[in-house]
Amino acid sequence: MNSPAYDDQNVFAKVLRGELPCEKVYEDNNCIAIMDVMPQGPGHTLVIPKAPSRNMLDISAADLQHIILVVQRMARAVVKAFDSDGVLVMQFNEPASGQTVFHTHVHVIPRFEGVPLKPHTGGIADSEMLADAAGKIRAALEAMT
Amino acid sequence: MNSPAYDDQNVFAKVLRGELPCEKVYEDNNCIAIMDVMPQGPGHTLVIPKAPSRNMLDISAADLQHIILVVQRMARAVVKAFDSDGVLVMQFNEPASGQTVFHTHVHVIPRFEGVPLKPHTGGIADSEMLADAAGKIRAALEAMT
Repeated sequence: MNSPAYDDQNVFAKVLRGELPCEKVYEDNNCIAIMDVMPQGPGHTLVIPKAPSRNMLDISAADLQHIILVVQRMARAVVKAFDSDGVLVMQFNEPASGQTVFHTHVHVIPRFEGVPLKPHTGGIADSEMLADAAGKIRAALEAMT
Repeated sequence: MNSPAYDDQNVFAKVLRGELPCEKVYEDNNCIAIMDVMPQGPGHTLVIPKAPSRNMLDISAADLQHIILVVQRMARAVVKAFDSDGVLVMQFNEPASGQTVFHTHVHVIPRFEGVPLKPHTGGIADSEMLADAAGKIRAALEAMT
């Protein structure tokens, strides 16, 4: 497999530069967490390192070790925010695995008994719905600190 | 969500104690990587910390930061070993998300264009097939060092 070079015109690079809007729930020096605009379920969150990398195959060890702790924090937060029965963590590398935006990101998706995941191509979510979900996650994060 | 306490009679705890066999491709002081006996595709590998934890919701930060670097190494190794078009990384927390063994583990699954994942309940794989896959991964790891 030969991965193309990192292309800084991807959607998450634009979000990180402030060229596209996002519903942000967390930020530190090295990463952000935002609501996925095509959620596979309520509370579907993405953790995105700020430094450019395509996916797990080329991300730096330091960034990877940083974002995984934020993934853990977000997993705990979404369980609390949505009173979910579980949480799914997924990370796609290259199109054959489902990657559609070529800047590293980790999916954190609350799961509920008997509720199947929606397809990722389920369409852009209503912005009020995303804002509401983000508010719940921010409150959960606040309560955890 | 109230998670039950860690139960050391789970399958991976037994593998770690040597009470059940496994096809191991990597080991260090803190984790092992083994072939999934119910692979969703060729080369389906699991990274398993040695210390007891149920999933990402209770694993220690140190263990999580350790295993994610091994996940990265295994992702690179399976791409190389199987000449895959991509690699999927998944981690399930609680039954609602698909978790069936309640000791933390991360799935690393080579993906190929046009080849869907098999269901995880696809049955126990032939041991020769697993040994063959493990050999390819060990050789890829060797070549990477």
